[in-house]
Amino acid sequence: MEKGIHNCFLESHGDYSRARAVMIGVPMDFTVSFRPGSRFGPGFIREMSWVLESYSPYLRQDLADISLFDYGDLEMTFGNPEKSLGTIYKMAKKVMGDDRFPVFIGGEHLISLPVVRAAVDKHGNDLVLLHFDAHADLREEYNGESLSHATVIRQCAGYMPPGNIYQFGIRSGTREEFEWGSSNTHFYPFEILGPLSKILDNIKGRSIYVTMDIDVVDPAYAPGTGTPEPGGCTSNEIIEAVHMLRDCNVIGFDLVEVMPYGDPAGITGVLAAKIIREALLTFV
Amino acid sequence: MEKGIHNCFLESHGDYSRARAVMIGVPMDFTVSFRPGSRFGPGFIREMSWVLESYSPYLRQDLADISLFDYGDLEMTFGNPEKSLGTIYKMAKKVMGDDRFPVFIGGEHLISLPVVRAAVDKHGNDLVLLHFDAHADLREEYNGESLSHATVIRQCAGYMPPGNIYQFGIRSGTREEFEWGSSNTHFYPFEILGPLSKILDNIKGRSIYVTMDIDVVDPAYAPGTGTPEPGGCTSNEIIEAVHMLRDCNVIGFDLVEVMPYGDPAGITGVLAAKIIREALLTFV
Amino acid sequence: MEKGIHNCFLESHGDYSRARAVMIGVPMDFTVSFRPGSRFGPGFIREMSWVLESYSPYLRQDLADISLFDYGDLEMTFGNPEKSLGTIYKMAKKVMGDDRFPVFIGGEHLISLPVVRAAVDKHGNDLVLLHFDAHADLREEYNGESLSHATVIRQCAGYMPPGNIYQFGIRSGTREEFEWGSSNTHFYPFEILGPLSKILDNIKGRSIYVTMDIDVVDPAYAPGTGTPEPGGCTSNEIIEAVHMLRDCNVIGFDLVEVMPYGDPAGITGVLAAKIIREALLTFV
Amino acid sequence: MEKGIHNCFLESHGDYSRARAVMIGVPMDFTVSFRPGSRFGPGFIREMSWVLESYSPYLRQDLADISLFDYGDLEMTFGNPEKSLGTIYKMAKKVMGDDRFPVFIGGEHLISLPVVRAAVDKHGNDLVLLHFDAHADLREEYNGESLSHATVIRQCAGYMPPGNIYQFGIRSGTREEFEWGSSNTHFYPFEILGPLSKILDNIKGRSIYVTMDIDVVDPAYAPGTGTPEPGGCTSNEIIEAVHMLRDCNVIGFDLVEVMPYGDPAGITGVLAAKIIREALLTFV
Amino acid sequence: MEKGIHNCFLESHGDYSRARAVMIGVPMDFTVSFRPGSRFGPGFIREMSWVLESYSPYLRQDLADISLFDYGDLEMTFGNPEKSLGTIYKMAKKVMGDDRFPVFIGGEHLISLPVVRAAVDKHGNDLVLLHFDAHADLREEYNGESLSHATVIRQCAGYMPPGNIYQFGIRSGTREEFEWGSSNTHFYPFEILGPLSKILDNIKGRSIYVTMDIDVVDPAYAPGTGTPEPGGCTSNEIIEAVHMLRDCNVIGFDLVEVMPYGDPAGITGVLAAKIIREALLTFV
Amino acid sequence: MEKGIHNCFLESHGDYSRARAVMIGVPMDFTVSFRPGSRFGPGFIREMSWVLESYSPYLRQDLADISLFDYGDLEMTFGNPEKSLGTIYKMAKKVMGDDRFPVFIGGEHLISLPVVRAAVDKHGNDLVLLHFDAHADLREEYNGESLSHATVIRQCAGYMPPGNIYQFGIRSGTREEFEWGSSNTHFYPFEILGPLSKILDNIKGRSIYVTMDIDVVDPAYAPGTGTPEPGGCTSNEIIEAVHMLRDCNVIGFDLVEVMPYGDPAGITGVLAAKIIREALLTFV
Repeated sequence: MEKGIHNCFLESHGDYSRARAVMIGVPMDFTVSFRPGSRFGPGFIREMSWVLESYSPYLRQDLADISLFDYGDLEMTFGNPEKSLGTIYKMAKKVMGDDRFPVFIGGEHLISLPVVRAAVDKHGNDLVLLHFDAHADLREEYNGESLSHATVIRQCAGYMPPGNIYQFGIRSGTREEFEWGSSNTHFYPFEILGPLSKILDNIKGRSIYVTMDIDVVDPAYAPGTGTPEPGGCTSNEIIEAVHMLRDCNVIGFDLVEVMPYGDPAGITGVLAAKIIREALLTFV
Repeated sequence: MEKGIHNCFLESHGDYSRARAVMIGVPMDFTVSFRPGSRFGPGFIREMSWVLESYSPYLRQDLADISLFDYGDLEMTFGNPEKSLGTIYKMAKKVMGDDRFPVFIGGEHLISLPVVRAAVDKHGNDLVLLHFDAHADLREEYNGESLSHATVIRQCAGYMPPGNIYQFGIRSGTREEFEWGSSNTHFYPFEILGPLSKILDNIKGRSIYVTMDIDVVDPAYAPGTGTPEPGGCTSNEIIEAVHMLRDCNVIGFDLVEVMPYGDPAGITGVLAAKIIREALLTFV
Repeated sequence: MEKGIHNCFLESHGDYSRARAVMIGVPMDFTVSFRPGSRFGPGFIREMSWVLESYSPYLRQDLADISLFDYGDLEMTFGNPEKSLGTIYKMAKKVMGDDRFPVFIGGEHLISLPVVRAAVDKHGNDLVLLHFDAHADLREEYNGESLSHATVIRQCAGYMPPGNIYQFGIRSGTREEFEWGSSNTHFYPFEILGPLSKILDNIKGRSIYVTMDIDVVDPAYAPGTGTPEPGGCTSNEIIEAVHMLRDCNVIGFDLVEVMPYGDPAGITGVLAAKIIREALLTFV
Repeated sequence: MEKGIHNCFLESHGDYSRARAVMIGVPMDFTVSFRPGSRFGPGFIREMSWVLESYSPYLRQDLADISLFDYGDLEMTFGNPEKSLGTIYKMAKKVMGDDRFPVFIGGEHLISLPVVRAAVDKHGNDLVLLHFDAHADLREEYNGESLSHATVIRQCAGYMPPGNIYQFGIRSGTREEFEWGSSNTHFYPFEILGPLSKILDNIKGRSIYVTMDIDVVDPAYAPGTGTPEPGGCTSNEIIEAVHMLRDCNVIGFDLVEVMPYGDPAGITGVLAAKIIREALLTFV
Repeated sequence: MEKGIHNCFLESHGDYSRARAVMIGVPMDFTVSFRPGSRFGPGFIREMSWVLESYSPYLRQDLADISLFDYGDLEMTFGNPEKSLGTIYKMAKKVMGDDRFPVFIGGEHLISLPVVRAAVDKHGNDLVLLHFDAHADLREEYNGESLSHATVIRQCAGYMPPGNIYQFGIRSGTREEFEWGSSNTHFYPFEILGPLSKILDNIKGRSIYVTMDIDVVDPAYAPGTGTPEPGGCTSNEIIEAVHMLRDCNVIGFDLVEVMPYGDPAGITGVLAAKIIREALLTFV
Repeated sequence: MEKGIHNCFLESHGDYSRARAVMIGVPMDFTVSFRPGSRFGPGFIREMSWVLESYSPYLRQDLADISLFDYGDLEMTFGNPEKSLGTIYKMAKKVMGDDRFPVFIGGEHLISLPVVRAAVDKHGNDLVLLHFDAHADLREEYNGESLSHATVIRQCAGYMPPGNIYQFGIRSGTREEFEWGSSNTHFYPFEILGPLSKILDNIKGRSIYVTMDIDVVDPAYAPGTGTPEPGGCTSNEIIEAVHMLRDCNVIGFDLVEVMPYGDPAGITGVLAAKIIREALLTFV
């Protein structure tokens, strides 16, 4: 007997072998300093994805035309970031090795580190990292830990040239983070669409990995996140940012820091699912 | 003894005979496919209406100057759409027959069908339908049912010429719905104010019925709805759309798909009440 | 690639062919008169089941020793009870025909009707129905509808001798329901364990179907339900009732009317999952 | 046109002249020290009352046989206890003067003071006050105010002999309150049914006013209240307490401190409505 | 032993003697007519302030460079506005007398009255009042009370020339309030930044007190408030309004009507904390 | 200037030197496998403690007579259990070294390990551990980690003779845990008061440390916890268990796994505070 309706992402299926894109949930949230709960992000996004149609009237394409495998969630070793990152790294290597397009769904932002490492393994210095976030995530350490949601982009800069990193929409950080970002990465505080349109020509043809923290969007549009920061962009703006990458060679994508707590209407989950739908239709 | 404070709409009263406008709650939500609960919409809107003043500083008019009868809610036959639509139809005929301005409060969008039918009965081909919604609602059937919240406008098109239907703000639907809409109705996806201003001259003098699904507004402004769709308009924009109809002959109005679940602050309820206040002051 | 963690019931698997027991979610809630939302009951119970261990220290047995297939959810035709009941009936026939033990998870109580019909088809007048509920569910019709959550046991009595029906814990109903129950079924208002122990000998050897509405438990222990009725039993009492059926021939089981709304801690979901664990270990 | 469904108490009507009992909501909560919100108690109880049947299987009587007028809510002067108590007092005098049975629904406990005063006006030293509560409410003042939710029974003792006051279930207070209660009122801490059964003979034939704070019930059964105090009675126990007064001459009743905040399932509202149903069927 | 982490505002300390700015919580909400709960506003803002960094990338300054004393909350006399306002007045006199910059955190808007009075005592007719709010707050009385959240600016006008009062963003009030405001204060309905930029030159050099009701911001951005009014400004706009006062002589500030109910994600609390951070860095 | 009202435990103060008892909050929850959030437990308990009176009518004693220092919360290294446990251990050594009675407030259960270790350091084999919990917490490892909330008592058994450990109320665990417990500790599944009364004589005169997981109480009474397990004791029973230790030499106490999520009424927080009040009055 085939299974009936169960909790997978809109229009996804269970057959890895014929998949062009692979979605992996990563229920890790144990280095967060303020409010945990993003471990429930992947399930929340899957559930709310069914509010949407699979057809995008923006792109006039349908998710049904992309073959998406929804893996479900990775098993984490709770309280042990190193082991957990190892599990993620192994999966990222596998999916990229099989030439499938990976979509990792957080969980906290630290989960992007092993995925970026796997992308660097494959693409070397050709790799460009686009980072959309309210927070700079450029600390060297946080409460004495170098593996933290607040250090993830600084950690990435240990595996790739900081000059290959572009940061958009940043509106929170320490003075040191803002200074380090300004000196080392392509650092665009507050703004997204303007700077993105300007640098598009520079990155076309490069292998691009996109990491997106949902809190780049204003808390009015995305309240379901651990550290909401007022003053972000609208839903339409983040979707337009995705669409702007239409002619680029995006080789992987993650969306992190979505959590159901604090969002009883599920609007953050629907927005995340819509971003993923548009990202899949744009990138794959 | 007169009754004390009880749950009716702001500045409404209980005397039908002297009313110019009549508000009817319709607690029907049993064809919805995702998240039911809009049956509690009418009570929610009444409760939250008291946050507002009866005076509109936009229009410099007061609701107290319009004589509004709040009927309360119709009794539905739960699980039986046909009987329930019959109940609504009968009420719509009565109110329109008595030349009162009807305001139906959903409940799911399917409740608009019998009201539009009653309006067609009265106004015939003179009737124009203005539809504000995130969703096209143009399916022929949904899960094998032709009576569904997802088919309501297509059903209306069975009672009136599709060319009399104008749809604004649509940003979700199947490929088939978008194609059917583009070919048959005046179909304006994504936008509201721009196209509305352009077609105003065409509809002036006609008998206009306005059906509004609250999810045309962005979920940031109206989280309390069954199928929130990111990317909608702001509160100010939807109120401006109402004001733009100032010189038109609007003969009826409904507001649907408001529900209290997921909106603990009640901001969707207040917004709905404010739209109704402005609509009454503009249309009546 | 095997799938990772996804939302199924504790210790269940995806292989029907080797299953002894089969769990089927039924997301139907559209005839309910007060508060819909039990369509989300099956997913809620699955999610919360992971709070539990698979080992029962009460019975010193482990769910891992029973081969449980979790089908996921049936697809309902929203707003159309007849079609939806047909879908359930077909599934119940299939599972019983394959000699698997069925566990149906509601959804509203009306879903038990087609399952009981399928059991009558197979077991005829040998079938005994044990009904645990706060409500008598013995109306002939409700708001003009005979297919309703409030009529389900009266409807069952149309397919089997009322004398084969035992009702426990009933503490709400109309005068007519209480009178009809007293005259026709084995009707035990308010109490559960006392009468159950007394009738055990009468039903041993018979084919027993157990239908349980979670609201038989007091709202303090099970707030997540549509029509909470104060004055019910405790968690321990309902689990003891299940254990008392240890030497009986139970041939099917359903648990209905669980819903996540109103239960932010998920305690109703965990309780439901625990009842199911104990029921599977006791009945299968 | 008659009004449709609107928010009144189960089986009540709008005609004072033929009423035997009168329900009055009192949305006052502005002297509370911890958590306000009981102003929404009356509306909450009305809404949740529809979960119940009007028939009581405990008493085999139906609320439909009692003629209940639901006044709605009194208009309070927010922030001004004295004026607000004056409004309540006037209403209590009117209803008692017309020989209707009054049921006042709080609101905070201070609302009982003017009703008790009106009862003293009518019944003098014959009046007995039965007080069910978690808190002694025997302070002389609270933060410098003598009119407070924490002083209400002490205030009552200024209008009637303390020896006419019986307090049940008290499990919180200052040392001074416990000492004053022990010396002046019939003070039964922790317990309800035992002491109540013992004093029944003493109060039979007297005119009895019953004031009940919902927090006498354990927070597990009644979480929706301002100052929940663990260790209270169950739902069944408080209902049994009401039933024990079956042969007494109860001349008025209030139920206070119910509030919807913190009770998303509404179980406190249903319990309150059930207590009121049983109280009306027992007392009137 | 020094105390560990406890609930104070971001980067504040406990030593009044070395403070340049002083934060005082005022848990008063007992004159509000709709929904109380702003008494929990100060604690909510303190808790959520830790989501933020102390560094402002807008101003390139750090809160650590300002010496902020967080007093905690004043003790209110619940239900007695007059005594409570006296307590606030005394504290405002003390802080202003010691030449510290006061930040009062509500609580309802009425708490601004005694602070403005203290500012008038010190600055006389040099004082200018900037009022940001959705509501005019210009009633003479509300339900018979002159001391009310709805009368506070009219009351202030009794202590200072109405011509010294500037009102921004007002979008709700009675006809009388709008007329009185238009005739007496500098009254700018609906708009904020435009009129503010125009009047800046007029108020430079004057002693300015800023009172801000969080509901001037749209409910999408600030749902956690008692009387949400659709149609307000965005988070960025209110922060820009604060920044525009950069070269002005602001001598005190309050932020009122924040409440945690209805805002499970805490986005109103973070926004309030961010406004306070920017205000302190701009004004002190 | 003295500070005003701020968030400390009922009747506590800020002077360590004169304290007989010390309360330390431990906001650690990063090894939990199901639902994090107990890091907010200490703040939640402090906030809700003000619902209570400081006087215990059970013991006729007042918390004001005990000198309680509320330290606030320890600073954790998020995602690093070892460092965090080190921080706790150091504090436990300090407080016990200074001969103050320690009350540690979780946070997850793993926080008890370093406190028990410090108690073993001081009391050696005289130390008896009383463990009240729904879960055995006797795993050797969990998902490959030996430092976990699910291993804490097994870990304690590495520092003290298992025969010195008494476990009460356990109703969840693996088969292996139940077998290990039965063979090694004094293991009393399901029951609390019966076995406790029987072993009291054995432990009198010994140095006793009490560790209590709030989930030993039924979820009806304590929904605010990470892994609610139906079938536990009532509020009154756990308080009676505390009172039964009246003549014992308890040298330390912790209460863990309280969290505010899922408990909007705060009843778990009040219960926890009441247990702490009774524990302090009984043990100190």
